[in-house]
Amino acid sequence: MLLEHPEASKLGGERRTLTILTSDLRGFTATSERISPEEVIKIINLYLGHMADVITKYQGTIDEFMGDGILVLFGAPTVKGDDARRAIACAIDMQLAMKTVNEQMKAWELPPLEMGIGIHTGEVVVGNIGSEKRTKYGVIGSQVNLTYRIESYTTGGQILISQQALDAAGQEILIIESEKEVRPKGVKEAITIYGVIGIAGEFNLILPKEEDIFCPLPEKIP
Amino acid sequence: MLLEHPEASKLGGERRTLTILTSDLRGFTATSERISPEEVIKIINLYLGHMADVITKYQGTIDEFMGDGILVLFGAPTVKGDDARRAIACAIDMQLAMKTVNEQMKAWELPPLEMGIGIHTGEVVVGNIGSEKRTKYGVIGSQVNLTYRIESYTTGGQILISQQALDAAGQEILIIESEKEVRPKGVKEAITIYGVIGIAGEFNLILPKEEDIFCPLPEKIP
Repeated sequence: MLLEHPEASKLGGERRTLTILTSDLRGFTATSERISPEEVIKIINLYLGHMADVITKYQGTIDEFMGDGILVLFGAPTVKGDDARRAIACAIDMQLAMKTVNEQMKAWELPPLEMGIGIHTGEVVVGNIGSEKRTKYGVIGSQVNLTYRIESYTTGGQILISQQALDAAGQEILIIESEKEVRPKGVKEAITIYGVIGIAGEFNLILPKEEDIFCPLPEKIP
Repeated sequence: MLLEHPEASKLGGERRTLTILTSDLRGFTATSERISPEEVIKIINLYLGHMADVITKYQGTIDEFMGDGILVLFGAPTVKGDDARRAIACAIDMQLAMKTVNEQMKAWELPPLEMGIGIHTGEVVVGNIGSEKRTKYGVIGSQVNLTYRIESYTTGGQILISQQALDAAGQEILIIESEKEVRPKGVKEAITIYGVIGIAGEFNLILPKEEDIFCPLPEKIP
């Protein structure tokens, strides 16, 4: 049930259909144990800084930085009509922004970072949660957990979205490169997840193909 | 390597051995989908409020509220000699405080809450992470993930600790009621985790046995 009254959020608690985006740096936790702590923080902050700029551009609400992970809400605190589209466009632009991040990594003589993103649309409870001394706008519900599970299937550079996110955005404006059935923990039946590489319409964004990223050899090795 | 210089944290990034505590309400995410959103937030805030008071008493640093989950650090930003002991004492006192929480739940005519706690001691990177607009004191490393995995083995009312946390606290002052081998995801070999119900010494805390919680029948049912 959606509460119609604006004062409801003050009382604390609303049930809302949001589009949830989670991202993390694939393999970075293991890497973080092999490099200096200063480098770990320098890299994380480079990455989070660029991603925060992109997320702000698409009016996503950053709910949380957790290590190298980010939890972003579209549709809270303010509902807009195009939450799922903005989330997917944001994800593509985040992947595109990794080019700039990795140019800096190269300048620092560090290996490139790879990010995976999961997106799902579902009903959750939102509200101000916490103690007297510490309150935050938070989100509760199994759909948040499911978004993390979807993200866990990604490889570096990938964006995986649920059927619900696909339906909410409208399949006709998305460029899907893959689909697969998965059975995440805590979910009764197998679900289909889709690899998105582009969005048409006003956002008009597409990820370059892998061969565009890796320089082709100028001629065959004899 | 531990950085000796206090200014290192300003530069951003230190490798530290911390004791990490994570807790969550077992089964609450599923419950949250059956009750009103106002009740979800009311319950979460009742629970977080009481837990925050206990955590503050044991000088733990609340790193994060994530839905009904809490991530607490002992040993950061300030290292103390008894981090693991304080973490374990804090966990026992958190479980004891659930009695007060559940008295309120009963007054609200709601079913009791059950919390699980995981504790682990290990080396992580700590520092101020985030973007220009939003920075927090954060923690990065596989030992954080391992703590969540340890917590995932708990049932309601339980405190499970790793071998490293047991060794750091000193087995001689702990009351252990169970041990088992588990093989968490992302860990090469099976690890032993211990169910703790009490701590001796200056903290001197013990969890009541289950039969003390459930009222015995005054006489046999004929």
